[in-house]
Amino acid sequence: MKYRTFPLKQGNLPFWLSALLLLAFCQLSSQQSPEVNAARLDQTLQQLATFGRDAAGQPNRVAYSDGDLAGRAYVMDLMRAAGLAVHTDAAGNIIGTRPGTQAGLKPLAMGSHIDMVPHGGNYDGCVGSLSAIEVARTLHENKISTRHPLEVLVFTDEEGSLTGSRAMVGKLSPGALEVINSTGYTVGQGIQRLGGDTLAFATAAREKGSLAAFLEMHIEQGAILDQEKRDIGVVEGIVGLKWWDVTFRGRANHAGTTPMRMRQDALLAAARFIQAVNEEALNRDGTQVATVGRIRAMPGAPNVIPGEVVLSLEIRDLSEDVITEMFAKIKARAEAIAGDSGTSVSFLHLDTTAKPALTDARIQALVEAEAGARGYSSKRMKSGAGHDTQDMALIAPAGMLFVPSQDGISHAPDEYTSPEAIARGANVLLGTLLRLDREWD
Amino acid sequence: MKYRTFPLKQGNLPFWLSALLLLAFCQLSSQQSPEVNAARLDQTLQQLATFGRDAAGQPNRVAYSDGDLAGRAYVMDLMRAAGLAVHTDAAGNIIGTRPGTQAGLKPLAMGSHIDMVPHGGNYDGCVGSLSAIEVARTLHENKISTRHPLEVLVFTDEEGSLTGSRAMVGKLSPGALEVINSTGYTVGQGIQRLGGDTLAFATAAREKGSLAAFLEMHIEQGAILDQEKRDIGVVEGIVGLKWWDVTFRGRANHAGTTPMRMRQDALLAAARFIQAVNEEALNRDGTQVATVGRIRAMPGAPNVIPGEVVLSLEIRDLSEDVITEMFAKIKARAEAIAGDSGTSVSFLHLDTTAKPALTDARIQALVEAEAGARGYSSKRMKSGAGHDTQDMALIAPAGMLFVPSQDGISHAPDEYTSPEAIARGANVLLGTLLRLDREWD
Repeated sequence: MKYRTFPLKQGNLPFWLSALLLLAFCQLSSQQSPEVNAARLDQTLQQLATFGRDAAGQPNRVAYSDGDLAGRAYVMDLMRAAGLAVHTDAAGNIIGTRPGTQAGLKPLAMGSHIDMVPHGGNYDGCVGSLSAIEVARTLHENKISTRHPLEVLVFTDEEGSLTGSRAMVGKLSPGALEVINSTGYTVGQGIQRLGGDTLAFATAAREKGSLAAFLEMHIEQGAILDQEKRDIGVVEGIVGLKWWDVTFRGRANHAGTTPMRMRQDALLAAARFIQAVNEEALNRDGTQVATVGRIRAMPGAPNVIPGEVVLSLEIRDLSEDVITEMFAKIKARAEAIAGDSGTSVSFLHLDTTAKPALTDARIQALVEAEAGARGYSSKRMKSGAGHDTQDMALIAPAGMLFVPSQDGISHAPDEYTSPEAIARGANVLLGTLLRLDREWD
Repeated sequence: MKYRTFPLKQGNLPFWLSALLLLAFCQLSSQQSPEVNAARLDQTLQQLATFGRDAAGQPNRVAYSDGDLAGRAYVMDLMRAAGLAVHTDAAGNIIGTRPGTQAGLKPLAMGSHIDMVPHGGNYDGCVGSLSAIEVARTLHENKISTRHPLEVLVFTDEEGSLTGSRAMVGKLSPGALEVINSTGYTVGQGIQRLGGDTLAFATAAREKGSLAAFLEMHIEQGAILDQEKRDIGVVEGIVGLKWWDVTFRGRANHAGTTPMRMRQDALLAAARFIQAVNEEALNRDGTQVATVGRIRAMPGAPNVIPGEVVLSLEIRDLSEDVITEMFAKIKARAEAIAGDSGTSVSFLHLDTTAKPALTDARIQALVEAEAGARGYSSKRMKSGAGHDTQDMALIAPAGMLFVPSQDGISHAPDEYTSPEAIARGANVLLGTLLRLDREWD
């Protein structure tokens, strides 16, 4: 890839030449910084939100539901209005394409997803999906051609477990098709409902290197940009995560007849462990997180000392080494707690594991430059949540940008990002795409 | 009540008078220390255990089940073999009576229960019930008459919520009859099954002062006697207890996108609370206990920071003041934890409350003396578990004695007390009954 620069030499120039250069510069500037139609983008977001609500009128557009099908039909219409040719692949991913002007260049792709968790929110993947379509529509309306072919991607069932993007990078496990989601359909049945073909999955897989780059815009789903009043998050990577089930075993006993000093209370040991997990995550430099979100104490009666407690442990970080080191420390803390509380502890590593995915450093710089050029504030940050980008990063240089989530709320009906904040993100997406188109081959 | 003492004056006595006194003393001694038939007591315990097993052959003689009915029939047969006249009252309590020799004295009563918790053990209330019957049988066989009438009581549904003894002291709430237990019958239906009459409950209630005394023998259900190798527990009282539901409210949030320092983790606050409860119970002189046995974290997913945690708090002690003081300290600790963790906390006092019940100090001394006279070791202790005695103490001077529970295990199939330990308890029960008969009016 080579970087294109505008050759200017300093010195005195004739007036007519200066005027001509100024005119050329203005022409170039207008080409560099077109703007999306913010009102239209907001209107399409509101319209998409009308599809897939539950009986109480709350958002519930779960993948493969009737609402998902209706929302996808709407999105495909929007793509066509943006001048894109639309098709779906065997995994049900929606793909809108637009040719480039220079032969031999690979496509620049951008997109996100429109499905949501049960009783989720209308912003999550929708903001990035509709912004990508709006970017294409802005290019179409302004008759801006690109050297690279373009693709707008709306991935299938991101909330399941990145189903569409996993299939696109050839990593969807066959067992994933048998998982039943809240619609009652299996993933396999759902994909057939979307017009996909589970028997032809191989045709959905893209080769590594088959795309020039992939860009995703998304709401942050955290409160950092909102609290720090920054417009754009420049995502350095998507954290990896590991899950364990942690079991403390003591001795269930009568809460009335067992003196305090004779107890082997598994819940008391678990309580100390929960604090230790928190301390280990806090006491280290960096942005690693560790969480106990699920706990079960058995037998679970107010008058019985718990004999067994099972709880979940999740550790996330951009570095797999950090996850490994933190786990070792947490495990040692757990064993010390078990040792002096008359309990035993065991760890079961669960299958849910995601490797950290770094975005392309050059694209990070372009996103940051584009935000700066438009006068938007930005912040480099990690994504604590998983995204389709983590799959796409396996086959292409990937970039990701965040817009603020009000109060950090996500996966809930009161998820919100203002139309102005979304438009800023869409403009940065547009500008970054054009920079890539100009600067990369 | 007056204490009878044997008038002996020191000095020289003629040989024939000495011989006569020695004979009288031996006669008295043999009257004071008859022994139960330990082998027969063990055999009846094994026989009772054959009634009311689940499909896997494990003990499951829940009140009102077919097994309970069969066990009760067996127990009534045993009572008749002990020379008792048997009837049931309106609450289904089994009552075996034996007349006394001195007119105008109120009955001495003793007994326990034979029902068990689902999948419980064969010792719990059975040991005391069958020991009381064996005591009566020993008196019958040895033709030992008592001045007081005797009653052997086998209470209905102790494990429900002391149903039979509550009715006997006129304290069973009408709502209690509607509770459904694991047999599928309501308590009301169950009592009808036992031959009781829920419409004539008032006839089951005894007046305060209508019994000379009540004695109960029971397994400890704790490990103190077993660990300290003591034969007999002299129960000073049955602890009172109070229950609360404690709710910590924080903010449910994405475990990946919410930095450690921005969290309002209700489970982390609850974990600190569980430790505080333990510390408050340990840091005070006395035998009070405090337990968190049940916990629920919501939403309860490994990748969501818990926004709400509800847990149980139980405090038990012989003194209601101690319970009140401990709760005040625990509540203050909870509020401090909430204050510095971005959570709120609330306490809901539940209906389950039992007032502490003290046994009669004079009977404690008699039990202790009887154990000592037989060469058994004893220990004064509280009962951490509830018993029918706590009701009977409302209407009569009450005494209670414990025999060791192996490893403190109770309410489980591997509940165990050796036949020798049970026989020691039955002998102390017998001796204490005879001391009461001699010494009290």
